[in-house]
Amino acid sequence: MLGQMMQKPLLISTLIDHADTYHGETAIISVNTAGGTEETSWGGVAANARRLGSALSRLGLDPQARCGTIAWNNRRHLEIYFGTSGAGFVCHTINPRLHPEQLAYIINHASDQVLFLEPTFLPIAAKLREHLPKLQHIVLMGPRDAAAAAQVEGLIFYDELLDTGDAGFEWPQFDENTASSLCYTSGTTGNPKGVLYSHRSTVLHAFASNTLDCVGYSARDVVLPVVPMFHVNAWGSPYGCAMSGARMVLPGPGLDGESLVNLIEKWGVTLAMGVPTIWLGLLGHAKKSGATLNSLTRTVIGGSACPPSMIDTFRDDYGVETIHAWGMTEMSPLGSTNMPLAKHAGLSDEDQRRLRENQGRPPFGVELKIVDDAGNDLPHDGTTQGDLMVRGHWVLDSYFLIEETALENGWFNTGDVATLDSDGYLTIRDRSKDIIKSGGEWISSVELENIAMGHPEIANAAAIGVTHPKWDERPVIVAVRAEGFEPDEDQVLGWFDGKIAKWQIPDKVIFVDALPLGATGKVLKRELKEQFDDVLTG
Amino acid sequence: MLGQMMQKPLLISTLIDHADTYHGETAIISVNTAGGTEETSWGGVAANARRLGSALSRLGLDPQARCGTIAWNNRRHLEIYFGTSGAGFVCHTINPRLHPEQLAYIINHASDQVLFLEPTFLPIAAKLREHLPKLQHIVLMGPRDAAAAAQVEGLIFYDELLDTGDAGFEWPQFDENTASSLCYTSGTTGNPKGVLYSHRSTVLHAFASNTLDCVGYSARDVVLPVVPMFHVNAWGSPYGCAMSGARMVLPGPGLDGESLVNLIEKWGVTLAMGVPTIWLGLLGHAKKSGATLNSLTRTVIGGSACPPSMIDTFRDDYGVETIHAWGMTEMSPLGSTNMPLAKHAGLSDEDQRRLRENQGRPPFGVELKIVDDAGNDLPHDGTTQGDLMVRGHWVLDSYFLIEETALENGWFNTGDVATLDSDGYLTIRDRSKDIIKSGGEWISSVELENIAMGHPEIANAAAIGVTHPKWDERPVIVAVRAEGFEPDEDQVLGWFDGKIAKWQIPDKVIFVDALPLGATGKVLKRELKEQFDDVLTG
Repeated sequence: MLGQMMQKPLLISTLIDHADTYHGETAIISVNTAGGTEETSWGGVAANARRLGSALSRLGLDPQARCGTIAWNNRRHLEIYFGTSGAGFVCHTINPRLHPEQLAYIINHASDQVLFLEPTFLPIAAKLREHLPKLQHIVLMGPRDAAAAAQVEGLIFYDELLDTGDAGFEWPQFDENTASSLCYTSGTTGNPKGVLYSHRSTVLHAFASNTLDCVGYSARDVVLPVVPMFHVNAWGSPYGCAMSGARMVLPGPGLDGESLVNLIEKWGVTLAMGVPTIWLGLLGHAKKSGATLNSLTRTVIGGSACPPSMIDTFRDDYGVETIHAWGMTEMSPLGSTNMPLAKHAGLSDEDQRRLRENQGRPPFGVELKIVDDAGNDLPHDGTTQGDLMVRGHWVLDSYFLIEETALENGWFNTGDVATLDSDGYLTIRDRSKDIIKSGGEWISSVELENIAMGHPEIANAAAIGVTHPKWDERPVIVAVRAEGFEPDEDQVLGWFDGKIAKWQIPDKVIFVDALPLGATGKVLKRELKEQFDDVLTG
Repeated sequence: MLGQMMQKPLLISTLIDHADTYHGETAIISVNTAGGTEETSWGGVAANARRLGSALSRLGLDPQARCGTIAWNNRRHLEIYFGTSGAGFVCHTINPRLHPEQLAYIINHASDQVLFLEPTFLPIAAKLREHLPKLQHIVLMGPRDAAAAAQVEGLIFYDELLDTGDAGFEWPQFDENTASSLCYTSGTTGNPKGVLYSHRSTVLHAFASNTLDCVGYSARDVVLPVVPMFHVNAWGSPYGCAMSGARMVLPGPGLDGESLVNLIEKWGVTLAMGVPTIWLGLLGHAKKSGATLNSLTRTVIGGSACPPSMIDTFRDDYGVETIHAWGMTEMSPLGSTNMPLAKHAGLSDEDQRRLRENQGRPPFGVELKIVDDAGNDLPHDGTTQGDLMVRGHWVLDSYFLIEETALENGWFNTGDVATLDSDGYLTIRDRSKDIIKSGGEWISSVELENIAMGHPEIANAAAIGVTHPKWDERPVIVAVRAEGFEPDEDQVLGWFDGKIAKWQIPDKVIFVDALPLGATGKVLKRELKEQFDDVLTG
């Protein structure tokens, strides 16, 4: 016997409709790619999304046609998110920092029929055009531009496309399991693989992100997603903010410390989201400029493990709470967030500090477990390490266009090595492939990095395992000195004394001017390994 | 093309599984019906729910068999919520304060196969037993009791039933649209009607209730649902709290001011939920006893319009934020909650105060509109009144066992007369049937009551329309004096001067010792009208 309740599909169009109806005047701030800032509103974004949805519907695309975007965080990108998915197409966000060959591979693999482009990327598109046989339309994200039109035949201009659309367009109704959006993971081996989200998974993820112990957006927040909209949908913030009617500040291409500090101070940002390397820049500039970041109440930090010293600085110097988060492209991406339980209220400051260092608990809708090499469940005792497995409403089942399941007995293997404690708190010990295995024993590169970055004269650090004649592999630190300081190798190695077992202390410190960063701000360890692998043997 | 994400049904069993896994040690405090308090945990509740689910599954009940409960807010009732629905049965909560004839009607109409009973209600059940032909099992909520066993043949004892169950029981998997729970509305005309919730509607409602601008439970909250578990699932708090891992304090049968103040102070309650009349008692006792309610940060008040003076007292005297909420049994029940928007931060104290008086905005998942008598949409301008219509994921489609839709063009008519402003803020002006129509003009009884209850020497008041020879109907106030005060009719009528149009000022004030209250604490206006209808003509 079924319940006798209304049946309505969970569609992305209902998120933008909600924001339009109940938060229509709420401001959306957008930094233009060419510089300068414009201000629109959820009502303005909704109207343009409907115009775009209607205009796309008239282009004769296939149902669920993929519409690629190579774009920064700005209001046009936000309109494209809702306009494409809302009209039944798939919003396919593409990382602009990929190699042109990878871009072509991804666009062709996804069979993108439309490609939305920032003016910045027009030259790349012009060059790739002939290698993209399935692509029907290239849409430049801006007004008509004669010079651009001359570069690509048949180029469409976003603002003109909107003019052909209908702001009164009514969103189509369809199965909530329909594909809504697509994001390729960078992948460490082989070609990138696509994760094809559904309307249902996206809306349920938005609900979870809006719970108080996850991110918890409110209609009084001003949200700055520094995490790119081409990177797992900016952690779902466009959907989460539409659901709650939060204001958004979309930072455009400039993610340096100074630009971010200025945006926070100018627009009264309350909640900012990004990877640790971004915050290094921000904290560096705030210190130098004396900015107080008064409005900021919390930062969500994920993408890679957040050094405890950064959590301390945010809290002690700026009164900002850090929500340490963990997730993956394959998880939409939210898997866990670090928020305390009631019983932690009585802990000492130091114990509370410790507690906030790990990756936290999953929201309702995601389950975590750890297993051994044979797939047997391991205890959640806070010390046993195992392969981290996940399942839930917003976890992938299989990769795009691959029929074979990506699951092992119904669970997705994250490739992370982790511990879980009895309250469900997750600590990522390492990426399986990142683990340093010295004489058969595991050493956590994350732990080494956290210690190194806690050194007051170190700005950034990566731990890598390099070849060693006796121990197979030994840890080495690649470090960037803080501005104005000149710590030497002995000082840095001495810093590890007493913080970790003797045999886990790195063999060497290599100082560099900067670490190689990937498109989303993660350190490219593969490059470091290639460069320094013979440092102990050569 | 469908997304390639995991497919998992939204089931109530996953809520208790989540609470068990991630909040297993979190305390559940329960006041026993016979007095005294016991402490269990989400883990304990989950284990007992599985025991109950397994024991019920062995009784040979029909699929989705209705399991009635006549019970207070306590841990056994909580276990029954999850144990019945989790195992695929329907948790049918019944209002114990109904007349025995109504109880029999509802139990028979629902075809309850099992009836869970507090020991208090055994005499009623013993008397009704022969009129309940479809009922198979009566379960007394407690340990074996020889005297009770002698009263009802075949009586089962809850604690013994659990002993036959299996704590390792695995919840069955089924369609998320399966019926999960049933609640009858008191109804103003005809027989009570049942609202049959589904697992999906219940879980989505729990998600919405957990958003920051709705109720927003957190794992650091101690939640006191004073609203009964037999009244629209205690506003969904058992599900919402399981989703977030909030602690719960279940107050049992004693809802007087003193008992509630003691529970709040003893257990550090942070969030309490109930109807205005309950809070009158609580505030009265807190004032008398000098209790400070230190731990309490917010109260959710709904069920009937909350007098502004109560919001003021909570804020000014106790530092407690009141979340004014509105909903219906037909809506699971949450329809709207009053939380400010960002733009309200700049308002004066007085304007902020005003803003918090109305019933607020709907969470994502519910839509509101107002229509005229012909069903035409009316503007959301804050002044135009119309019939309030709702739709959404947790709004009913049709009443239990009635095939005919309960909707008008896809919307449910709430029976409330309301205004909506351009931000979506709802103000309930009246129940359609409660409106006072004087000389063809509407007068809001809610407004009259709010003014009367703002008088410092009035403890409680109801406005009713009584027969008038010239104007058809005129407003009259039925008031309860505050303890130790003796305001007379002229003083009270004078209090309306300048607060409302002259012609809207009531014709008379009738003082009574107490207002007649229904089972959920609402004033029974029908009784007042019958009693006083001739007060201007007789």
